[in-house]
Amino acid sequence: RQCVGAAGGWSLAAAAAARSVLWPLPQQLDQSADRNSLSPQRFSFIYGRDSAAQTGCSVLDAAFKRYFSIIFPDFTKGSGLLMSENKSIRYTSVSSVTTVSAVSVKTRGCDGYPDEDSDESYNLSVSEGQAVLRSVTVWGALRGLESFSQLVYQDDYGSYFINKTEIVDFPRFAFRGLLLDTSRHYLPLHAILKTLDAMAYSKFNVFHWHIVDDPSFPYQSRTFPDLSNKGAFHPFTHVYTQSDVMRVIEHARMRGIRVVPEFDSPGHTLSWGKGQPNLLTPCYKGDVPSGSFGPVDPTVDTTYKFMESLLKEVKFVFPDSYVHLGGDEVSFACWQSNPNVRTFMEKMGFGKDFTKLESFYMESIMNMTAALNRTSIVWQDVFDYRERIPQDTVLEIWKGETYQAELSRMTQAGHRVLLSAPWYINHISYGQDWRNSYAVQPQNFSGTEEQKKLVIGGEVAMWGEYVDATNLNPRLWPRACAAAERLWSDEEKTLDADLAFPRLEKFRCELLRYWKYVCNHSLSTSASFQWHSAHSK
Amino acid sequence: RQCVGAAGGWSLAAAAAARSVLWPLPQQLDQSADRNSLSPQRFSFIYGRDSAAQTGCSVLDAAFKRYFSIIFPDFTKGSGLLMSENKSIRYTSVSSVTTVSAVSVKTRGCDGYPDEDSDESYNLSVSEGQAVLRSVTVWGALRGLESFSQLVYQDDYGSYFINKTEIVDFPRFAFRGLLLDTSRHYLPLHAILKTLDAMAYSKFNVFHWHIVDDPSFPYQSRTFPDLSNKGAFHPFTHVYTQSDVMRVIEHARMRGIRVVPEFDSPGHTLSWGKGQPNLLTPCYKGDVPSGSFGPVDPTVDTTYKFMESLLKEVKFVFPDSYVHLGGDEVSFACWQSNPNVRTFMEKMGFGKDFTKLESFYMESIMNMTAALNRTSIVWQDVFDYRERIPQDTVLEIWKGETYQAELSRMTQAGHRVLLSAPWYINHISYGQDWRNSYAVQPQNFSGTEEQKKLVIGGEVAMWGEYVDATNLNPRLWPRACAAAERLWSDEEKTLDADLAFPRLEKFRCELLRYWKYVCNHSLSTSASFQWHSAHSK
Repeated sequence: RQCVGAAGGWSLAAAAAARSVLWPLPQQLDQSADRNSLSPQRFSFIYGRDSAAQTGCSVLDAAFKRYFSIIFPDFTKGSGLLMSENKSIRYTSVSSVTTVSAVSVKTRGCDGYPDEDSDESYNLSVSEGQAVLRSVTVWGALRGLESFSQLVYQDDYGSYFINKTEIVDFPRFAFRGLLLDTSRHYLPLHAILKTLDAMAYSKFNVFHWHIVDDPSFPYQSRTFPDLSNKGAFHPFTHVYTQSDVMRVIEHARMRGIRVVPEFDSPGHTLSWGKGQPNLLTPCYKGDVPSGSFGPVDPTVDTTYKFMESLLKEVKFVFPDSYVHLGGDEVSFACWQSNPNVRTFMEKMGFGKDFTKLESFYMESIMNMTAALNRTSIVWQDVFDYRERIPQDTVLEIWKGETYQAELSRMTQAGHRVLLSAPWYINHISYGQDWRNSYAVQPQNFSGTEEQKKLVIGGEVAMWGEYVDATNLNPRLWPRACAAAERLWSDEEKTLDADLAFPRLEKFRCELLRYWKYVCNHSLSTSASFQWHSAHSK
Repeated sequence: RQCVGAAGGWSLAAAAAARSVLWPLPQQLDQSADRNSLSPQRFSFIYGRDSAAQTGCSVLDAAFKRYFSIIFPDFTKGSGLLMSENKSIRYTSVSSVTTVSAVSVKTRGCDGYPDEDSDESYNLSVSEGQAVLRSVTVWGALRGLESFSQLVYQDDYGSYFINKTEIVDFPRFAFRGLLLDTSRHYLPLHAILKTLDAMAYSKFNVFHWHIVDDPSFPYQSRTFPDLSNKGAFHPFTHVYTQSDVMRVIEHARMRGIRVVPEFDSPGHTLSWGKGQPNLLTPCYKGDVPSGSFGPVDPTVDTTYKFMESLLKEVKFVFPDSYVHLGGDEVSFACWQSNPNVRTFMEKMGFGKDFTKLESFYMESIMNMTAALNRTSIVWQDVFDYRERIPQDTVLEIWKGETYQAELSRMTQAGHRVLLSAPWYINHISYGQDWRNSYAVQPQNFSGTEEQKKLVIGGEVAMWGEYVDATNLNPRLWPRACAAAERLWSDEEKTLDADLAFPRLEKFRCELLRYWKYVCNHSLSTSASFQWHSAHSK
């Protein structure tokens, strides 16, 4: 495509490479060498006659407009608008000129939200004259439109082409998530929206919003405004207002991306304490409070009343049927130091086992969540402490060392599992560390076929200790794309990282073009990936 | 300052922190707690009556204008211009209001270039009513203006202040370089200019432009246009025209930064061969040329004729008295395979020792360089192969393992040395890896005081295998600042990285403000540097 085309003039290799690439790799792909021309003036997206969705379908109308200008970046916005408004087009099938991409969707649901059962499959057939995209849902249509846009390329003279292609495609895993941490560093809204754009290009479908944590509480709660007034880095510049959150959710919905919020407790809640007195456990030095605070206090009713109202608000604000309750890394030292907690432990007969106390707390809020008709996701700690937890709870693995064994245990216990441990890409190292993410095999653990099915997907995690808007993008992309392909594509067809590399190089270039970054620069990036010098050894 | 002020409202610590910081740390700093107000409407830079430089001094006129808008970012550009044009100002000394910074320079030289002997020392005295900056050269004045700008801060209400301060300052090392590699990836002009801006904020004073290498030849030569026509990633979009190069040199000069170009040979020249036939050594498979090429062919006169004309052009285009000739990592395999080279080896009596052949080549071009009145810098390989090389040649150490021993050997042999090995910051790792750069002690090797003096400085190297304009800034800054302070400041006063850390955090914030990045974001960055989670372990 364009950036590669720019190279075409200077080496045959590059010229040959001026073919389209697809990332992640579709399940079935049949591409021929004969190419059709594409003309911005004559091309349009239309709804198929048999399509359940027609003009007026919010998700697809917007997608048509978006992808038109992605496919034809040089074409004036004005005309882009025109095309997207004028859906009824003069259809003239000229042999070997693709003038239309007809999109047919079985079921409507243009105003709904994607969920864990959404069917994202699609069939795409590019023949002479036209391309036909068929899907069960609008979400599948979005995946197909992305693939279609990746099929179009330009030659050295700027003409647009698309090769005859047959694609049958569907995701390997239903849950393909990316975690952003907006507590350790505040991320401005535009950084989150741009990330959602890029996620769609890699067919990620869940934005795991780790929205609050110890350092700051940027979520502006309608029920408890003091949480951000006193707990955010700044009560006005470093918060997400209700309308900010709605913008994120709608931006994600338009791209078929779910937004799963995480309100991590009882640990990781230091910032909560600033705006919610008596929520955290006062730590003691001997017989007197030390002035510092520990995890949420699980021994008082006020805590559960607070959590219930907070979770009610979360249910009201976030449409997704999942909510992440955290439950990781609870330090017991402070609980242990507190006399009231110790008394409570005796009363409950927990002895000295504080994991029982945490389980007691987590169980209560998991039940609240269930009562609110929401599915809980919790970090693996909760399972490690107590195997008896609500069956429909989704467990997320973050501890790197032994995640295969953990996968076996959890699925053995019949729980659905998310794998994140090997995809903590906030960790960086020199060189092509995307290969480590690519080598992960989420279902490679000892267990029955039934157990393997319980792995519903995984998440790339970008924790915020060292990440803010100044370095987020270059740390995320294209590194996150490796996991995106692992979660979408057939593992057998994508085992070899060396085969994937040229595709990834070109895809990176496309990402840069989407971001209006002059693609020529990334050409050299791609090109010189190959160059090494002992200088850097 | 501003970004810190934003925090001031929310914690006493931050409020106390709303004081200025200096990076790199001056040699002598005496700051009092009493502060003077500063008003954009009433403040101006003026030339001291006794100053050799007066209005019309290109370097300082521009610096006054630049630093005025850096110090008063909220102040309208219009007025900024006004101030910088109207140097003669109504001087009214109101107690505890600083209305003027009088700058006095001993020697003129406003239109010259900085060089290795430039005196960068300055004295800065901020008292009630005015600040007085004295320096020997305009380059010293630039360093002082940077320090002055770092002294100014805003309180939570946006008022500007500067504390009473006495600074006596001068660099520890005369050569404080930063290397950019524009061959492995092309860097657009704006990326280079922005890097020069940031270098000035850290008091770097040499831009080592590794402009060409194996992957591409972006330098558009007037004598040999085919070198970039055929050797660049793209002959129009991926080249530096003569006017581009002039812009870089002038932008650097205005900031007291030298531009030292590197034309690395005889290795690292693959891209040269495309535009200059018969320059590279044809590699042989048995008795026939394999079609691939090796290092420059040191056996034919045409090579030396070419190098001489190229170096003549380099002397003409780049005003600096230094030129970097490379000489690193020459692979002998291709030379060995070539019958003509073998014959030449016999004729010269080199036996099988190809290091003699490389030394022969390097000596010739070092002599050319000397004849052109330029000082050569070469990578350590040249010295490692042959200790007998022109005495005034500067040697640069890039091999990490044993650089202390190398420092001893080279200075023993009486050569001036540049240290780069421990500062290859293109290498990245998770967390605060700036501490490694900070821990380097360039003169900590066994040798006499005389030998220690031969260490003229060092260089931060940002090699381009994995770096282009999409990730250059976050990899360079603030990481490069660690070496900047090591090269400027008194080592005894800057041994403790933990003490330096808060200053570095604030300085990072200033860099971001310079770059018009909303400083509030970096506030949280600074703040949350402290936060860690086992999540990231």
